[in-house]
Amino acid sequence: MDPDVAFAVWSGERARRVESVLERLLPPSAGSADMLCDAMRYAVLGGGKRVRALLAYAGGELASADPVVVDCAAAAVELIHGYSLVHDDLPCMDDDVLRRGNPTCHVAFGEAIALLAGDALQSLAFETLATGIPNPGAHVALLARASGASGMAGGQAIDLESLGKKLALPELERMHGLKTGALIRAAVRLGAACGRPLNADENDALDRYASAIGLGFQVVDDVLDVEGTAQSLGKTAGKDAVQRKPTYVSLTGLAAARERIDALRREARVALSAFGPAARRLLEISDWIAQRKH
Amino acid sequence: MDPDVAFAVWSGERARRVESVLERLLPPSAGSADMLCDAMRYAVLGGGKRVRALLAYAGGELASADPVVVDCAAAAVELIHGYSLVHDDLPCMDDDVLRRGNPTCHVAFGEAIALLAGDALQSLAFETLATGIPNPGAHVALLARASGASGMAGGQAIDLESLGKKLALPELERMHGLKTGALIRAAVRLGAACGRPLNADENDALDRYASAIGLGFQVVDDVLDVEGTAQSLGKTAGKDAVQRKPTYVSLTGLAAARERIDALRREARVALSAFGPAARRLLEISDWIAQRKH
Repeated sequence: MDPDVAFAVWSGERARRVESVLERLLPPSAGSADMLCDAMRYAVLGGGKRVRALLAYAGGELASADPVVVDCAAAAVELIHGYSLVHDDLPCMDDDVLRRGNPTCHVAFGEAIALLAGDALQSLAFETLATGIPNPGAHVALLARASGASGMAGGQAIDLESLGKKLALPELERMHGLKTGALIRAAVRLGAACGRPLNADENDALDRYASAIGLGFQVVDDVLDVEGTAQSLGKTAGKDAVQRKPTYVSLTGLAAARERIDALRREARVALSAFGPAARRLLEISDWIAQRKH
Repeated sequence: MDPDVAFAVWSGERARRVESVLERLLPPSAGSADMLCDAMRYAVLGGGKRVRALLAYAGGELASADPVVVDCAAAAVELIHGYSLVHDDLPCMDDDVLRRGNPTCHVAFGEAIALLAGDALQSLAFETLATGIPNPGAHVALLARASGASGMAGGQAIDLESLGKKLALPELERMHGLKTGALIRAAVRLGAACGRPLNADENDALDRYASAIGLGFQVVDDVLDVEGTAQSLGKTAGKDAVQRKPTYVSLTGLAAARERIDALRREARVALSAFGPAARRLLEISDWIAQRKH
């Protein structure tokens, strides 16, 4: 099979798999607190690229993990990602009305329910790790650090404080390393942590890979925000410029941003070289991230 | 020593103890994402009755737990409680400007930072359990369930949906059982789960105790909202009536609400009778809750 086709088949299968795991984990909408459960399902089910889940599965394959255990890691990172999107879209944050081509959660359910749905999705992520993974202490600590003040939430706070300011490139990379990168690194590591123990060198290599693709993912986002249309992105295009957010493109120009994407893709490839064929899916994901169009 | 004085000494010591644990756990405000760390510290440190922490310590004493391990359980429930207050006070929820006699977190730091601070406090709660308690899986699952859609967040959603509606008493009790009761039950159980294993009868008895004081705490709150002043409460008094929230007092009248408080206090006492002197602090807390004036 053509490698691109083989990867498309693998990633499609895994995306459907995590969808059905999430479908089972999310509370049914029957009963009281209906709106909350509906909002949680609305925010998480039926869409998204599932990049973080794919990374967890690929990390799991690297470490020969039981896929049923990795299901929980994959679902947990998607739940954290889903909660962060709901809170990000709120009027007091990015005030966005369109997400994956649909009204954002607070447009559909009201701000208060959207706030609570995000909160409850975060709780569900940790419940999922705690109930589905044997000896989950390290997994919970890892995901909690990646989500909190020293990870995603910290990056969002730096992003808020930088609105309208001129960030230098290292500051921008640090912000993205927390805001988007921390959860992407956690996804790879959580998946791998479901399998055989990795040695220190292997963990370092995996972290270099995950940092490179985390940053690469964000640079691609910045490029697509300039080049894309709302239709292809499923969200409002050109928002960064309107909000005067510093981006790779605004700091370095489009050509340099594209070069950075290629360099990060090479970094990811080099980091994986020690693992051999077990890293196949991780490698394919980094190529896919570099080439994605939406 | 007079028993009331002895309890005051014990609870004062434990409140100071969890304060210093929280002080150590919360991120220092030096460095980037300053505002976020400041907001997290502002929301959690320097105040509150620490009822949930005291319950965790008392639960720990019941099961002869190592107090250093219980510190983490006590801090984790206070972090969840702190996050819920920050999000509850936001304009899209209760829109409150005064908490513990001070401006609420979003008044002091802005809505976006307050939202993120709440999010990061939730992450920190789970990180605290995962890193401070041996084999923390059951603890994480317990706290996550108590916080999420089937616990606190679920209760808040029912509360939102009931604004301006006439709830019957059983519905009101169900709402409070989730909104306030779930975390109070979790505090007792988390503390006890740090010690010797309890048998099924003991766990049942502990749950009956925790349910009774959880509900009792809320009925007292409703009575104080009618009787109290902003000065004694440290928050806006009489808000329930203004917002037309159903309360015990509005449904049953003040006299019946006071009787319910006494009945719940007796229920708590009966539930603890099998434990003997090991339940001393839990018993004192239920008496204190029934008699509190703010």
